[in-house]
Amino acid sequence: MTKKLYHGAAYYPELWDEKVIEEDIKLMKEAGINVARIGEFAWHTMEPEEGKIDISFFVNIINKLYENGIETVMCTPTPTPPIWFTHNHPERMYVNQNGETMGHGSRQHACTNHPYFRQKANEITEHIAKAIGHLPGLIGWQIDNEFKCHVSECMCKTCQGLWHEWLENRYETVENLNEAWGTKIWSEYYHSFEQVPQPHPAPFLHNSSLSTKYRQFSMEKIAEFSDSQAEIIRKYSSEPITHNSNIPFAVDNERLFENLDFASFDTYATQENKASYLMNCDLWRNFKKGKDFWIMETSTSYAASLESYASPHANGYLKAEAVAAYALGAEAFCYWLWRQQRAGCEQPHGSVISAWGEPTVGFQGVLEVEEMRKKIEPIMISTRPLQAEVALTYSDQAKAYFQTEPHQQMDFRGLVTNFYHHFVSLGIHRDVLPESAHLEGYKVLFTPFLPHISDEYRERAVEFVKNGGTWIVGPISGGRTGEHTIHTDAALGKLEEVSGVKALYTYPLDGTGSKGTAFGESAPLGLWSTVFENDETTVGTIKGGNSEGKAFLTESKLGNGKIVHLGSLPIGEEGDILLKKIIDHYVTSADVTVRTNVSNGTIVAPRVGENSTQTWVIVNMDGQGGQVDLPAEAIDEFSRESVSAGKFEVGPYEYRVITFK
Amino acid sequence: MTKKLYHGAAYYPELWDEKVIEEDIKLMKEAGINVARIGEFAWHTMEPEEGKIDISFFVNIINKLYENGIETVMCTPTPTPPIWFTHNHPERMYVNQNGETMGHGSRQHACTNHPYFRQKANEITEHIAKAIGHLPGLIGWQIDNEFKCHVSECMCKTCQGLWHEWLENRYETVENLNEAWGTKIWSEYYHSFEQVPQPHPAPFLHNSSLSTKYRQFSMEKIAEFSDSQAEIIRKYSSEPITHNSNIPFAVDNERLFENLDFASFDTYATQENKASYLMNCDLWRNFKKGKDFWIMETSTSYAASLESYASPHANGYLKAEAVAAYALGAEAFCYWLWRQQRAGCEQPHGSVISAWGEPTVGFQGVLEVEEMRKKIEPIMISTRPLQAEVALTYSDQAKAYFQTEPHQQMDFRGLVTNFYHHFVSLGIHRDVLPESAHLEGYKVLFTPFLPHISDEYRERAVEFVKNGGTWIVGPISGGRTGEHTIHTDAALGKLEEVSGVKALYTYPLDGTGSKGTAFGESAPLGLWSTVFENDETTVGTIKGGNSEGKAFLTESKLGNGKIVHLGSLPIGEEGDILLKKIIDHYVTSADVTVRTNVSNGTIVAPRVGENSTQTWVIVNMDGQGGQVDLPAEAIDEFSRESVSAGKFEVGPYEYRVITFK
Amino acid sequence: MTKKLYHGAAYYPELWDEKVIEEDIKLMKEAGINVARIGEFAWHTMEPEEGKIDISFFVNIINKLYENGIETVMCTPTPTPPIWFTHNHPERMYVNQNGETMGHGSRQHACTNHPYFRQKANEITEHIAKAIGHLPGLIGWQIDNEFKCHVSECMCKTCQGLWHEWLENRYETVENLNEAWGTKIWSEYYHSFEQVPQPHPAPFLHNSSLSTKYRQFSMEKIAEFSDSQAEIIRKYSSEPITHNSNIPFAVDNERLFENLDFASFDTYATQENKASYLMNCDLWRNFKKGKDFWIMETSTSYAASLESYASPHANGYLKAEAVAAYALGAEAFCYWLWRQQRAGCEQPHGSVISAWGEPTVGFQGVLEVEEMRKKIEPIMISTRPLQAEVALTYSDQAKAYFQTEPHQQMDFRGLVTNFYHHFVSLGIHRDVLPESAHLEGYKVLFTPFLPHISDEYRERAVEFVKNGGTWIVGPISGGRTGEHTIHTDAALGKLEEVSGVKALYTYPLDGTGSKGTAFGESAPLGLWSTVFENDETTVGTIKGGNSEGKAFLTESKLGNGKIVHLGSLPIGEEGDILLKKIIDHYVTSADVTVRTNVSNGTIVAPRVGENSTQTWVIVNMDGQGGQVDLPAEAIDEFSRESVSAGKFEVGPYEYRVITFK
Repeated sequence: MTKKLYHGAAYYPELWDEKVIEEDIKLMKEAGINVARIGEFAWHTMEPEEGKIDISFFVNIINKLYENGIETVMCTPTPTPPIWFTHNHPERMYVNQNGETMGHGSRQHACTNHPYFRQKANEITEHIAKAIGHLPGLIGWQIDNEFKCHVSECMCKTCQGLWHEWLENRYETVENLNEAWGTKIWSEYYHSFEQVPQPHPAPFLHNSSLSTKYRQFSMEKIAEFSDSQAEIIRKYSSEPITHNSNIPFAVDNERLFENLDFASFDTYATQENKASYLMNCDLWRNFKKGKDFWIMETSTSYAASLESYASPHANGYLKAEAVAAYALGAEAFCYWLWRQQRAGCEQPHGSVISAWGEPTVGFQGVLEVEEMRKKIEPIMISTRPLQAEVALTYSDQAKAYFQTEPHQQMDFRGLVTNFYHHFVSLGIHRDVLPESAHLEGYKVLFTPFLPHISDEYRERAVEFVKNGGTWIVGPISGGRTGEHTIHTDAALGKLEEVSGVKALYTYPLDGTGSKGTAFGESAPLGLWSTVFENDETTVGTIKGGNSEGKAFLTESKLGNGKIVHLGSLPIGEEGDILLKKIIDHYVTSADVTVRTNVSNGTIVAPRVGENSTQTWVIVNMDGQGGQVDLPAEAIDEFSRESVSAGKFEVGPYEYRVITFK
Repeated sequence: MTKKLYHGAAYYPELWDEKVIEEDIKLMKEAGINVARIGEFAWHTMEPEEGKIDISFFVNIINKLYENGIETVMCTPTPTPPIWFTHNHPERMYVNQNGETMGHGSRQHACTNHPYFRQKANEITEHIAKAIGHLPGLIGWQIDNEFKCHVSECMCKTCQGLWHEWLENRYETVENLNEAWGTKIWSEYYHSFEQVPQPHPAPFLHNSSLSTKYRQFSMEKIAEFSDSQAEIIRKYSSEPITHNSNIPFAVDNERLFENLDFASFDTYATQENKASYLMNCDLWRNFKKGKDFWIMETSTSYAASLESYASPHANGYLKAEAVAAYALGAEAFCYWLWRQQRAGCEQPHGSVISAWGEPTVGFQGVLEVEEMRKKIEPIMISTRPLQAEVALTYSDQAKAYFQTEPHQQMDFRGLVTNFYHHFVSLGIHRDVLPESAHLEGYKVLFTPFLPHISDEYRERAVEFVKNGGTWIVGPISGGRTGEHTIHTDAALGKLEEVSGVKALYTYPLDGTGSKGTAFGESAPLGLWSTVFENDETTVGTIKGGNSEGKAFLTESKLGNGKIVHLGSLPIGEEGDILLKKIIDHYVTSADVTVRTNVSNGTIVAPRVGENSTQTWVIVNMDGQGGQVDLPAEAIDEFSRESVSAGKFEVGPYEYRVITFK
Repeated sequence: MTKKLYHGAAYYPELWDEKVIEEDIKLMKEAGINVARIGEFAWHTMEPEEGKIDISFFVNIINKLYENGIETVMCTPTPTPPIWFTHNHPERMYVNQNGETMGHGSRQHACTNHPYFRQKANEITEHIAKAIGHLPGLIGWQIDNEFKCHVSECMCKTCQGLWHEWLENRYETVENLNEAWGTKIWSEYYHSFEQVPQPHPAPFLHNSSLSTKYRQFSMEKIAEFSDSQAEIIRKYSSEPITHNSNIPFAVDNERLFENLDFASFDTYATQENKASYLMNCDLWRNFKKGKDFWIMETSTSYAASLESYASPHANGYLKAEAVAAYALGAEAFCYWLWRQQRAGCEQPHGSVISAWGEPTVGFQGVLEVEEMRKKIEPIMISTRPLQAEVALTYSDQAKAYFQTEPHQQMDFRGLVTNFYHHFVSLGIHRDVLPESAHLEGYKVLFTPFLPHISDEYRERAVEFVKNGGTWIVGPISGGRTGEHTIHTDAALGKLEEVSGVKALYTYPLDGTGSKGTAFGESAPLGLWSTVFENDETTVGTIKGGNSEGKAFLTESKLGNGKIVHLGSLPIGEEGDILLKKIIDHYVTSADVTVRTNVSNGTIVAPRVGENSTQTWVIVNMDGQGGQVDLPAEAIDEFSRESVSAGKFEVGPYEYRVITFK
């Protein structure tokens, strides 16, 4: 990919006739679409009969697009195996957790672990890669589409066999597994790996180790499939490879992107949920650090299917979304989809052009995005996102733990997003990091909602602390082992030893009347909590409830830095205030400087250019307009005029780009 | 049927001994019951062992009832095949959409498409028709009972085969089907009809065409079954045949009644939901235009089963319900059921007489109905319901579209009923018409919530318009093809060409802050909406939201009439006011005269006698009493006294009948 | 069991190593635990391979505990058959009502009626009984664990065969069954017992008789299993046998305890739901009248699993709970569980000691319980719970009727508990009696929510009335036969004849505007109701609604006593007042003296010592403190000082014990 900003759309030329395609290309150019993503559901078009493969239709499309200045991201079509694969072959299909075998007609209906699926998937991908890998219009690959967005862990017989193999590779002997999972409980004990069940229907819950390991097994298998597909492509193409993922899918994104070349995500967050949108940007930027990410799919206005629809974006919001993405590290901002579906089950979904070839309600926004893209492209090319000084760990492994152990309908994504949102509100620039990310350059690390803290993670964080970092652990972090069992040495295992705190006990604080007080603020505490001894480490104490006078917030010096334990989540409006106070306190104490005094609803994305000049992209995202304090004089990148230090205003959905001298 | 008003009850003599039957007949006469409906679950009594058929019990019952002045509607007993049919024959049973095969013990457990079911159903019906067809007490037939009230589309193997056959008959080649359904999407493409799945469990939604066609297939099959049963009966009996249907059942009522002789319905609407009750009357009157309909089942006070119950009617309401029905075109008003069930699963259901043979809480109401029936019978015989000038289209095909595409949990029946209710509130007499109804005599036609407007329908409506009619189309009408896909020429297909409007785009308006203004009223707009170009056709414009200044209401002259597009649904209390304003405006402009100024909660059912004299049946249905403006002097049909023009009052639940001179 | 008060905990030594066990025993002694319950899930430990049985681990544990002053209740391990029983044997597994076959990994996964399960269960129990039956540390047995707490009626093939056998034993001929169940309805009729289905999925509800009988069949079978296990144990051990049951489980507790030696229950009622806790005490005391019951499991603070948690007890509540239990007839108060689970699915559940061996949040409460236990033990040993003068009937058969016929999501347990709670509020000492309990010594009997009143029960109650008792029947009592059908002689069958009342009809009163007035109070009436003729028996009349002027409360003299019919439930806040007024009226008229004037939230448990001295245990259970009127001077059992008559105060969660002279 040559360095430029992409403005793209998902396109399904296989569904339309030549005349429509001609019209589409003409309209794309008018709308400023410079990249199309194609092919992800087109297996039938490529291989209408088993073994009769012909990719020429897509070769022609890519060439035609390229002739018109539109580059292509080509997809492998594996989410939708054709009828010759599925018909009369229930053994190849996905089996859900109620034991229902999926039929043909939707997508993700096949078991991606079935050997014949793998064989045919490899075959079709090899043909595509061969035919398309060297086309000049091709700039990248997407493997499959939204892995595990409709399904999660398959329960078929193929998976059963692979599960046993996976367990054997992991535990070597079944005795190791029995010991690790504590299977003497409820006489679960297995005499061979073959006896270990998939988490089929049972009268009550399964062993937490079994549940979590089955999720991990499933996440690894889908990543392996992705790996193997990428490997095939690489034999024939040097263009970079990605997958369009998202947080709610049943995948481990960190593992998934490990063997891919760049990260991308699909998002249909509504305007109200822009915290989720921003968090995705801050996280995806870090899956392949130093490489721009893509927003591979987003709606021009609203998502919909036959049975649901989201609220349309307000006029102006699409542009604000796009500029925020580019500024936070996106190389591309792409719509799903170009032309409204005529058939299927997503006809009502927002698009650029309607099924009858005319502008949709979202079209004006697309034009605004394109205008903006052209204006900011040179700046985006000459700058890079500035690394934050504050990091938050995000983990899909933690997501799996919460799925097994939701405690009380806890919504992992919601908890994490709310926690994250405080940083945005406080104007703190932040990186959301995958679990294994390096911590160089950060001053503060937050580790909330990570039930299992691995030895490796802990050691890395401790190293970070010894070098002067501040590590805030919790809430609900560290209380589970890697086998999803409870520590038997201390509530938080070795972590207590390292930080020198004494966790007394854990229990749910909701409804107990317990209030936490720290740094002059006070708020009710809730959720599954760890209560600490009130000793020299205490900085936040509990009033009321069963743990009067004990600590919920501790601080331990270690080397040049400190470890902070946040044992409980302050809740409600007062809780938000207290939590922000705690965050602010540690961020301030750590001398974090990449931070802005910005009004709520407006964001600042700091970037760095040559000679370390800082450029700020300021975007109002709530349609109310806003302001930010400029710490110094700067240059407005569009007017090239000087802007003085102090209050700087942006209008509703307006974006401004300024560079400090 | 000789012309008279029937007052009836469902009766299960096969469940009681002779002494109880004697007592029942005596009590029926006391209560004024002049017709009994029998036999619909009595297959076992008629054919206790496979092939051993004996109908004599029912012959005797019909004769005995007749001797006591009670006529009979005889049913075929096919909703409950006996144990010899079902035991050890899972292949004959209904399979639901989760793949569960139904067992014996409830009803509608058999697949009505299974060939052996058809054979045995034909056999038993032939025996019954032969034995009973000429009995003097017999006045009519009911086929089966509430088709598809508990079940919907069967997923068994028999249905799979018939489905393929049905598709082949419809599409001739599978390529036609692929093209019509757009099956290249998601590589759904089929190489033979045998590959087309039933809508079995899948990871996400099925193709809308598949879903809707499967519903249509199912609705046609059940109607064919009804046809074949009617054909057999007609070989032996000249009495008219009906079926007791209702809106929520998974049938196409228009198609179902096509080959039946008169229409009837069952209703258990509570008093609060009287709009639904009245709409049924206004619709069922039009399934077999010119023939009176029957209310075949309603409760004397409340519906109930083992696991639920409805609120009892207030004292007085039953009579109001009955007189409204007779006045709106019912020939019969019948209870379910005569004697409370002793066993089964509906023991708590309201009845006329308890299981221990005494009056129930509803009994007094039954006596009041009978008193009323006697009073109004001569008037009802000498008059007919007056055709309305305003028509609304109701379509069970539309219901199927909404089931496939509920957009956002949209409740088709609720939407239609609310829309309908405005006409009642405005005192506008109305006919609710099936899709294919003739439009002669109407001035205004409303077509709300009809996603697919067929060419035939459109042409008929356009003809109607050219002849001076006003056609109001929408909301949510016309945007889907007959294959449940999206038009590719224009949002509303050929309709736009005809009306000369320009639909810009469609999208959900809920929560966007969009307000519609027309005729001086303004209200929020909601639901899936079509937005029009603001041009010379505009009469209602949008303020706020994404479509500021565009139109939601247009008016196009055509021939002597006009086509009005209502692109969106005004919602909330303001929405009701705006919608009523729109209705009122077009009804008034069209010089609709069959309309009364009546207070809310009171209704006027206009009838016409010889020499075109108009008779009004005025009924207070909310127990609050009410009033209506009489446009001229009239005669009170009961007192035979003159009533002057102007305000005319009715007491709580009171009914009055007046005839204009 | 020698007479003492037990303070115990469930213990799982098979899950921990020797060192932990040593530590546990040491800590148990410190905490005052004098009894451990062990073994109920340990089948694998006892029989790791099919047929290789070794109980020595538990022999050693029991001996070691005994050496440390801790006695043992030994369990049979049948809720969790090991993998050698389940693997590849779906035919041995529990099948739920959707037809899903349970897999290994949780508990209660086997069908307890499968012959091989019975064989292996008998075998393991015989080995245990032999090995452990004579150990000095053994003081009792628990069979299995919480029968049917996760499952209800099994639908497997084994159960199908047994069901047919059970029906044949009960009905002798299928014709009797057909007649009893009224199977001619819906052509359900069966020609042989083999044709009678289990209540498998059906399009609508099953026949009420079928549903209720299947529940009864299931409840009898599990009780038979319990019987057979007890029989085996008795061959080798003379220690008493129990089962840890509770109200929500799908068992008939009265039948279950029939062949056991003492009654026990598990309770996880939160503090808010203390009515449920107290009702359990008042009921379990009467399953084996004259023998103390056990609380076999309760949490030290809160219940939890991977997916839910309850609110922790406030500090002080545990002790209040425990003293209330001991005072109301408990011999033991035991925790689930001693040491927090390390693995499985209940790790978050409250315990005494954490998985890492330290005090939990509930630990302090345990110490308080132990301190209390020591103080009250001598008094509890020298006194017995005083029999109440007021009895309420509780029936699990009624629970089954409500499951079949919930009317309107009626929650049987909630209805009964709310009704019960009024007696606590009114300070009326009460016994909650199983259906067949003797009525000697009672003055008033309440029979609410008993749909079927058997001849035997009615005759016993009538005898009680003739001897001077007051019998209050209803609401929702007596309207169903033993076959779960409707009476055909009168609404309440023979009961009406006995009491000389005339029940007019039954129907749901909710939302009808009906108010009941009696004894000067008035309140809305609701639920499924029986309305009576207003005649000389009337004491409460209905205003408004359909039954204006009729009676809902009647009183009939019979012999020296009276029968009171309460036809409807007064609802809402006014309803509580009216219902309490009715209760108070009849309790007062019957000269009930075992009653206290105690403030809400505080309870009095009266006990009787030698020479009939009365001792009161007064406990504040709401943490607000309270007071009670002492009718006479008394002695404080702890201070041995005299306490004068009149107001007597207790502090928050405080308990006091006083004895009247």
